[in-house]
Amino acid sequence: MSNTTTKVPLERKVLSENDRLAAELRAEFARHGIRCLNLISSPGSGKTALLERTLGAFDPGVRVAVLTGDIQTDADARRLERYGFPVRQITTAGACHLDARMVTKALEGWDLAALDLLFIENVGNLVCPTSYDLGEVAKVVLLSVAEGEEKPLKYPGIFFKAKLMVLTKIDLLPYVPFRLDDAIANARSIQPDIEIMQVSNTTGEGLEKWMEWVRRGI
Amino acid sequence: MSNTTTKVPLERKVLSENDRLAAELRAEFARHGIRCLNLISSPGSGKTALLERTLGAFDPGVRVAVLTGDIQTDADARRLERYGFPVRQITTAGACHLDARMVTKALEGWDLAALDLLFIENVGNLVCPTSYDLGEVAKVVLLSVAEGEEKPLKYPGIFFKAKLMVLTKIDLLPYVPFRLDDAIANARSIQPDIEIMQVSNTTGEGLEKWMEWVRRGI
Repeated sequence: MSNTTTKVPLERKVLSENDRLAAELRAEFARHGIRCLNLISSPGSGKTALLERTLGAFDPGVRVAVLTGDIQTDADARRLERYGFPVRQITTAGACHLDARMVTKALEGWDLAALDLLFIENVGNLVCPTSYDLGEVAKVVLLSVAEGEEKPLKYPGIFFKAKLMVLTKIDLLPYVPFRLDDAIANARSIQPDIEIMQVSNTTGEGLEKWMEWVRRGI
Repeated sequence: MSNTTTKVPLERKVLSENDRLAAELRAEFARHGIRCLNLISSPGSGKTALLERTLGAFDPGVRVAVLTGDIQTDADARRLERYGFPVRQITTAGACHLDARMVTKALEGWDLAALDLLFIENVGNLVCPTSYDLGEVAKVVLLSVAEGEEKPLKYPGIFFKAKLMVLTKIDLLPYVPFRLDDAIANARSIQPDIEIMQVSNTTGEGLEKWMEWVRRGI
């Protein structure tokens, strides 16, 4: 049997196992009225910085939690913990994405009835996390203006699946050769309905609209 | 049989098949005296821009070629072709990395005896390409100062395997919260011998040292 013929069925099996677990997570989140958002981007696009800004903007009573994924280190969890909301780090020990099993395991022992909003910060990778449903209500893709406006065309998978594209680091626009209109047109050419917003975690620009979007339905 | 117990041997088989093909590529490159460099980074760290600068700095007689990998589009090949050197695009159609089989196939019909230097621009992904030997003499990791100085700790695999770390977009240093000394210390903590240089593809700063490094041994 060649590698090709063995490989396809196994990938399907792994993904369908993931889909089964993700469906269980989605049902569980729905039962508890939890809005779960899955943040996906390249390394260094500002996922953790956006979550720091977001947690910092919440009143202490807001029922929000974060799962943050990395291949190594618990640096992100430590950055996010100081806002006083529950945070857990998932260290994938080499895996290039989070999967539904990791999320299920990380949620063990949590009182889901006490949550309204759950952020999942995926591993920094614009490719692989796209294929793994985590039970979220929406995928959010972040694209830093330092990365280039052609990224939606070169990594179409995530821009097709995301409900929202957040253009980050817009304070850098004067210093980088990023064509904003082209970035938006490129994303819309992959998915006409994608919502788009622009933020700077440094200056705070655009964060109000982001917070409105996050709070939708909770 | 559980997913876990089937998954490990198949990954091993795929990787050992890759290692076999990569060893063949490496022997072929050695036979023709080709220096092959495998460029790996996040999306948007400046791999294509660095190659544009590099090709632009070569005299027309230099025997250099480029293989450039992307999930979709041949945009990078089109950017690079105008320097007059041979360029081929590898479109992976979803795969998150290049493998040795793709490189072997892309080189079919090329006169390797006519080459001294081959750049392989990998898919933009700081994780998966690390595991796939392409027969290169060195992996080069690019890290943009817009991405953050903790990346070597969070993605240690590539910083452990790369011979050289190129810190890119240093013209942005005044505008981003990037701690250069920490980035260097973090990379060295993963691999004490890693060579490190700083470049800006915008201003041209640091490119002379890069060109010297590239030309080593050809």
